[in-house]
Amino acid sequence: MTAAPLAVTVAPARPADRAAVGRIAQRTGVFSAEEVQTALELFDGYLADAQRSGYNFLGCYAASDGRLLGFACWGPTSLSKGAADLYWLATDPDAQGQGVGTALFRAVEAAVRAAGRWLIMIWTSSSPLYAPARALYQRLGCALAMQLTDFYDRGDDLCAYVRRL
Amino acid sequence: MTAAPLAVTVAPARPADRAAVGRIAQRTGVFSAEEVQTALELFDGYLADAQRSGYNFLGCYAASDGRLLGFACWGPTSLSKGAADLYWLATDPDAQGQGVGTALFRAVEAAVRAAGRWLIMIWTSSSPLYAPARALYQRLGCALAMQLTDFYDRGDDLCAYVRRL
Repeated sequence: MTAAPLAVTVAPARPADRAAVGRIAQRTGVFSAEEVQTALELFDGYLADAQRSGYNFLGCYAASDGRLLGFACWGPTSLSKGAADLYWLATDPDAQGQGVGTALFRAVEAAVRAAGRWLIMIWTSSSPLYAPARALYQRLGCALAMQLTDFYDRGDDLCAYVRRL
Repeated sequence: MTAAPLAVTVAPARPADRAAVGRIAQRTGVFSAEEVQTALELFDGYLADAQRSGYNFLGCYAASDGRLLGFACWGPTSLSKGAADLYWLATDPDAQGQGVGTALFRAVEAAVRAAGRWLIMIWTSSSPLYAPARALYQRLGCALAMQLTDFYDRGDDLCAYVRRL
């Protein structure tokens, strides 16, 4: 079921978003407590010095009241001149199916292009938990470059998606 | 040209190997000064606390006089229960073609198995500089799981090799 797209703006995330970033990461139900903690540590690194940390956070805000609906985190891939990693893309469950993930992904594409890079890499799992994420990446024009059997665990493969800009 | 295999032993690297690790990394001619420095930093982390650092160094020693002929560095892949990364495999140019790389790789296989893991990942470049390394991995039973065009730079692809144990 897909509702009409919400009116949103995407912009670099701000210090005031910290609590909402943690809440959204937790509410997706996909990430462990440890992973949510990691997201917050990356967010703190980004706030302190985005360039140096290697992590860039974008927030997607409702045009109506400015509340955070989702966030993305990406960074240049180390040792590579052309690639960037999309580390996180999370949408508040209350705002899913309304174009938030798409808006964030398009903004990541623009930021990666602006950084002079031409590839976005997304490393994700074959588990059913990530089926909506995989479907989204496919819809957004990402290609499955590799599926590596039993990478995360027995029965849990690595799926490497690539978006060329 | 391949000489007869040298008599060697492979064992966890020791503090006294530090200078030779740096010298071998530098002498291969494949790594930048920055990469050699990184190898030494990883080595220091390994010496301080291998488990905590996530890096394990193996040395290959001449049976005759105990000198270091090459080294390997591997570690468990984060977020994965089954995979390990082979970060470095370097042989002293004076000892190349004599089975040092093979001995090190087999020892890495044994160590990864002993750690309860079943996949070794090797991320390398398609550039001619790495042709001998790629040929070695193929000979040792690694499969090219993905070649990603222009990943490192225009004309420099990512080659992902996988060894299943």
